[in-house]
Amino acid sequence: MFADLLESPEWDDPRHVPGEPGVRPDLRSRRIPLGPVAVFGASNFPLAFSVAGGDTAAALAAGCPVVVKGHPAHPRTGALAGRCVTEAAAATGMPGGVFALVSGPGNEFGARLVADPRIAAVGFTGSRSGGLALMAVAQARPVPIPVYAEMSSINPVLLLPARLAADPGGLAAAFVGSLTAGAGQFCTNPGLLLAIDGPGLPEFRAALAEGLAGSPSATMLTPAIADAYRTGVAGRADRIIAGSAEDCRPAVFAATAAEFAAAPALREEVFGAASLLVTCADADELAATVESLEGQLTATLQGESDDLPLARRLLSALERKAGRIIWNGWPTGVEVNAAQVHGGPFPATSDGRTTSVGTMAIERFLRPVAYQDFPAELTT
Amino acid sequence: MFADLLESPEWDDPRHVPGEPGVRPDLRSRRIPLGPVAVFGASNFPLAFSVAGGDTAAALAAGCPVVVKGHPAHPRTGALAGRCVTEAAAATGMPGGVFALVSGPGNEFGARLVADPRIAAVGFTGSRSGGLALMAVAQARPVPIPVYAEMSSINPVLLLPARLAADPGGLAAAFVGSLTAGAGQFCTNPGLLLAIDGPGLPEFRAALAEGLAGSPSATMLTPAIADAYRTGVAGRADRIIAGSAEDCRPAVFAATAAEFAAAPALREEVFGAASLLVTCADADELAATVESLEGQLTATLQGESDDLPLARRLLSALERKAGRIIWNGWPTGVEVNAAQVHGGPFPATSDGRTTSVGTMAIERFLRPVAYQDFPAELTT
Repeated sequence: MFADLLESPEWDDPRHVPGEPGVRPDLRSRRIPLGPVAVFGASNFPLAFSVAGGDTAAALAAGCPVVVKGHPAHPRTGALAGRCVTEAAAATGMPGGVFALVSGPGNEFGARLVADPRIAAVGFTGSRSGGLALMAVAQARPVPIPVYAEMSSINPVLLLPARLAADPGGLAAAFVGSLTAGAGQFCTNPGLLLAIDGPGLPEFRAALAEGLAGSPSATMLTPAIADAYRTGVAGRADRIIAGSAEDCRPAVFAATAAEFAAAPALREEVFGAASLLVTCADADELAATVESLEGQLTATLQGESDDLPLARRLLSALERKAGRIIWNGWPTGVEVNAAQVHGGPFPATSDGRTTSVGTMAIERFLRPVAYQDFPAELTT
Repeated sequence: MFADLLESPEWDDPRHVPGEPGVRPDLRSRRIPLGPVAVFGASNFPLAFSVAGGDTAAALAAGCPVVVKGHPAHPRTGALAGRCVTEAAAATGMPGGVFALVSGPGNEFGARLVADPRIAAVGFTGSRSGGLALMAVAQARPVPIPVYAEMSSINPVLLLPARLAADPGGLAAAFVGSLTAGAGQFCTNPGLLLAIDGPGLPEFRAALAEGLAGSPSATMLTPAIADAYRTGVAGRADRIIAGSAEDCRPAVFAATAAEFAAAPALREEVFGAASLLVTCADADELAATVESLEGQLTATLQGESDDLPLARRLLSALERKAGRIIWNGWPTGVEVNAAQVHGGPFPATSDGRTTSVGTMAIERFLRPVAYQDFPAELTT
């Protein structure tokens, strides 16, 4: 994918404003690599978001050496991927030291990597606390550096009234598929459903309860993730409407918009197949609830033609809240291409100005430099 | 300038990867405004870097409302410029509240503006301490926001050997012109000269001393800038080789590369017409000195054809250190166009990934959003 990009002449954004003697100098600019990048692999994607994942590919494509801190959840997969990258770098004649995989115990090891004066930028996918800790280290350096941390998102799904009335059973079945894929361990897992009280909502709830009845407890990626999930769902057990709040089973909870507004803890991500159905009294309360959300990786609209006026009303707020907005789909599943935005306002990421997936990600690791009145001998 | 940009279809970077049923969804992306921007005007540019300056123009062009904190150094000019912007906004039918000029005493007022949850980004031109203080406020917010602070730069000028030998008198005269323009109160003022000991250097020093002899004390922009300048040059009085270290007169000081390496205070910007000539023993010491520099807005090479091999050797380090590299010119004077980069690595700016001058500056205030499977009715 980045190979296609690098073959195009535009990835480094070359610009030229010719000089005019006595009027203005000749000025060219282009983007150059930021420098060595520290990449922190994710626990949940041993391939796409880890040693040889998107951050590594984007940084190498930009011309930056990469030091990956492998995730302890998959040390052997990480080592295998690291060996592949190292061998590919050697086989293609890349400079020695262009890639390194390191590992070490605990958070202090990662903090030392980010604090190293030779590191120029950081890519991270993980928890909010982990991302915030690395941001603090990066900002406290004598020379602060950018941190691209993808942290947490509950990915609201708005069930608009006509759609809910038209096909509550189909909606519930499709939602259950998105919720439970990979035991819900995706950063784009739909952790929040927003609906207006009305036709179809009781049927949707009933179909949810039926669809999740008897779901087995899942094997989670790591013991720590399993512990956090059990604690998260147990804390909401009094709100359960579908699935089970015991062990690592899928679970859907319910709250009114007023309860949601009053309980900040209900906005926190429970990483796994847990979701919260928030019922609003009317369109105004739905709009206010959307406005109250934190930054998200995604927001989804489920609607019919009759829902378009309401969708249009909500769109500006959704654009301010999310990196990707989906119509009649589900947030899980992220295409890797030139138009993808896997990012979003804080706390979904530390820096909503970029994406971690797709070719636009190369821009994370570049900075512009201008060359004034340069002779041809220096530009070649 | 931004009007030309906005007439082109590309300023918001529209992208489209068509969907294929059963294979991948339709995905479009574009850039949208970050939100309201707080702009802190500079003391030294009441027009280009203040109320109606580059940051304001770039933010408005991106679609962001702007709140300018006027600089107390020119309150009436600021008020006049603010009235022009307000009237232009009304005359062109821009939304109410798209622009506001505020002023208040001391640093606390500015900190409150940056801390306001409605502010989404900050543009600042001023001192290193001021920029660092605003960065800290922005990072301590519940929702951190980007700060584009232009802070300090000593803008090294490298006098390469063949050039120095060929025309020491002409070099000195041109340097004096760049040093003393506007009493040296430009962020691109050449505050550091680097040369290798050899032919032409004694003549260059003599011509400097002659060129600056008897220069009058300048009226500085503000009493605080005058005080800081007097203190700065007095602290280096034992190193003076040209001009005067008394009052607000131009002054050039000298140090060996070893002395420069050992005295971090010599790297600090003295805002005004002060510069430091650092003499290196050979090309290796020159390269090491360049490598030791902090981030800069500009770096300048003065060279002849015979200097090209040395220039080529130094270029990679200069690219890592500076936002703009100049061949046989002077850093003062910044063209406003599509190829300009007025930025550079920390501490020249807080964020070397952008520019504050030229049309590329619009990117500071945009973020990408993707739209998946959107119906035509929602995209128009």
